Amino acid sequence: MSEIRELAFKAGELDAADELGELRGKFVLDEVVYLDGNSLGALPAAVPAHVDDVVRRQWGSLRIRSWEESGWWTAPERIGDRIAPLVGAEAGQIVVGDSTSVNVFKALVAAVRAVRVAGDGRDENRDENRDENRDEILVDATTFPTDGYIAGSAARMTGCSLRPVTPAEVPGALSDRTAAVLLNHVDYRTGRLHDLPGLTAAVHEAGAYAVWDLCHSAGALPVGLDEHGVDLAVGCTYKYLNGGPGSPAYLYVRRDLQSRFDSPLPGWNSHAEPFGMRPEYTPAPGALRGRVGTPDILSMLALEAALEVWDGVTIEAVRAKSLALTDFFLECVAAYVPEGRIESLTPVAHAERGSQVALRCPDAGDVMKRLIENGVVGDFRHPDVLRFGFTPLYVGFGDVERAGRVLGEVLVS
Amino acid sequence: MSEIRELAFKAGELDAADELGELRGKFVLDEVVYLDGNSLGALPAAVPAHVDDVVRRQWGSLRIRSWEESGWWTAPERIGDRIAPLVGAEAGQIVVGDSTSVNVFKALVAAVRAVRVAGDGRDENRDENRDENRDEILVDATTFPTDGYIAGSAARMTGCSLRPVTPAEVPGALSDRTAAVLLNHVDYRTGRLHDLPGLTAAVHEAGAYAVWDLCHSAGALPVGLDEHGVDLAVGCTYKYLNGGPGSPAYLYVRRDLQSRFDSPLPGWNSHAEPFGMRPEYTPAPGALRGRVGTPDILSMLALEAALEVWDGVTIEAVRAKSLALTDFFLECVAAYVPEGRIESLTPVAHAERGSQVALRCPDAGDVMKRLIENGVVGDFRHPDVLRFGFTPLYVGFGDVERAGRVLGEVLVS
Repeated sequence: MSEIRELAFKAGELDAADELGELRGKFVLDEVVYLDGNSLGALPAAVPAHVDDVVRRQWGSLRIRSWEESGWWTAPERIGDRIAPLVGAEAGQIVVGDSTSVNVFKALVAAVRAVRVAGDGRDENRDENRDENRDEILVDATTFPTDGYIAGSAARMTGCSLRPVTPAEVPGALSDRTAAVLLNHVDYRTGRLHDLPGLTAAVHEAGAYAVWDLCHSAGALPVGLDEHGVDLAVGCTYKYLNGGPGSPAYLYVRRDLQSRFDSPLPGWNSHAEPFGMRPEYTPAPGALRGRVGTPDILSMLALEAALEVWDGVTIEAVRAKSLALTDFFLECVAAYVPEGRIESLTPVAHAERGSQVALRCPDAGDVMKRLIENGVVGDFRHPDVLRFGFTPLYVGFGDVERAGRVLGEVLVS
Repeated sequence: MSEIRELAFKAGELDAADELGELRGKFVLDEVVYLDGNSLGALPAAVPAHVDDVVRRQWGSLRIRSWEESGWWTAPERIGDRIAPLVGAEAGQIVVGDSTSVNVFKALVAAVRAVRVAGDGRDENRDENRDENRDEILVDATTFPTDGYIAGSAARMTGCSLRPVTPAEVPGALSDRTAAVLLNHVDYRTGRLHDLPGLTAAVHEAGAYAVWDLCHSAGALPVGLDEHGVDLAVGCTYKYLNGGPGSPAYLYVRRDLQSRFDSPLPGWNSHAEPFGMRPEYTPAPGALRGRVGTPDILSMLALEAALEVWDGVTIEAVRAKSLALTDFFLECVAAYVPEGRIESLTPVAHAERGSQVALRCPDAGDVMKRLIENGVVGDFRHPDVLRFGFTPLYVGFGDVERAGRVLGEVLVS
């Protein structure tokens, strides 16, 4: 019991010193300890009223006038610019829309096509010209499956072969055949943070393009897309960005690459003159050519309202709290759970850790069920992994202590 | 003035006899005559409260539990089954999700792939086996541009050439090279209804697959997908189905073709075991293989609530009223507009008319602006077309008479 008192006291101290602690009030939360923000972020309090306005006034009253008057038409790039600073991108390089899977397809096909055409001389990451012989796509073998499936389709449709390798194996697997490499910034299962700067540099060294999936890092830690010269990136917005169930994903196209971004989904929203109704396709300049069809306004504007919680918040502060939360959770687990009962898959080194903790035990499915019954919500990944996601915007240290304590109780009962 | 009294009286009589007249109360409308439901349908009154429940309770309170408890996961096929009877399809052949453009891509690529592999013997529309030499896609030369752009990409990525022809030219353009034909059921500009049964039969006769875009027909007139053996179809849901701005589109895959539906976008939602997290892709059975990524729940469930207005309504009754509305509008235009001032692009024959009237005049942009200022909302299509869409669920004959009268006033002032 003294250990419980000690950790509870420490949690109180950490919460008192937490400069992001007040942000919790910007979310709709209840008595549950919600550690599944890496699957579906909690509801930001500003969203319901905003969505109601979109439905009743913008759609119900203004109707088609809202395409212009309510800024519907420009939402994909406007919201992209709102996400940009969170992933280290200057404005004008991100558009929001479609699902992550669809954006992986756009990004990979465009990467393969770009590597095969002559550079325009403005692309620092490519010192060579035309390279039609590149015919291999490398994909993270430990990826969330959809990226692998879509990479398989992109390979098939561009005459490439697909080669799954672990991120650690990428440098050794690169060759002058490599066209593009699809990697995850944070592993969805283990929470491992991969070396985006180093791997991107290695990919460029080999003359290929790097495509990063930011689903499990954006909103939880600094990404530095521009700084590290990432070519293309995709991510969802319903995890640490709290955009709501199935909220639209986004696509980043590095500015120097935009003139050669040749989309496999050239819908009318990506046309230079979308209302010109021209039979010939002429792509819009800039990131706009990543758009496809009519944007799903309700989901998109819910996301825009959700992003308001980031006003005045730096991703560096979020990262510092994220590491403190996962450190403290691992400390609580060590204290409350009998040794040998579970195994942590989460890297100890901060440089290799995302914002989640993954614990393995043979009865993980049953354990998660009982955790949820006892007010601690994480999720279960087949066959034996317990995942706990820590969203620094609304998870406190008291939550963490309680989660560790309940986990300990469940595991010994 | 006697003409005005006469037509106003007739409008009153028609409204009094209108068996769908009461449905107007199921929509949020105001004093404006809204004839732009062929662009964005009006707000069904049930939607705001439903969306609020989705946001506050399903997302805000149940959070991830809603994927199961609120039926989020199965929404694409459940809502597809709700749309099915409106387009003449048995259940199990439609999934909702993504934009129309993305669905055109799925459908066309899958059509080309299906035509090139051996039949499974269950496909009545294909009496021949493997046909790898088919390398041409025909596309409606008068199509809404996005279909043409996407067809160009589908052709490029399947090794086909793309040949734009008018629907009337399709029978003469078909050959043993034709893999697939992409057609619009109703022309977005003129409102012309094309011969879906006859053209589909001609396409099958040539051994190719027919892909129909139903954006401007679904919800306005009978389509008969099953009856006429259509292979694949796509459509948006924000026009006559009133699903809201950018609400998700849908994809129909004829049952006999589903086992050979080979998607270019094989996201994890189309996997036979999506939560198995397997690296190998195994497509789900049935129409589910048309799914891609995580569905955008807010937009999708708004659509589901919007579809409730169809309970007890037959598409045949809607079609009868639609024709009565456009007939009456043409009558009012003839009476109120000086001869020669405008030209109608809308076919006179019912069998060739959708649910819109398109009128041409050189100053169409300015005319539409003044119509809107005077409470009649249609839209303008570059360079010289006024479009008026008639949604039988909420447009009445009094609206029609007023629209014709205001148009006449604007055109002579």
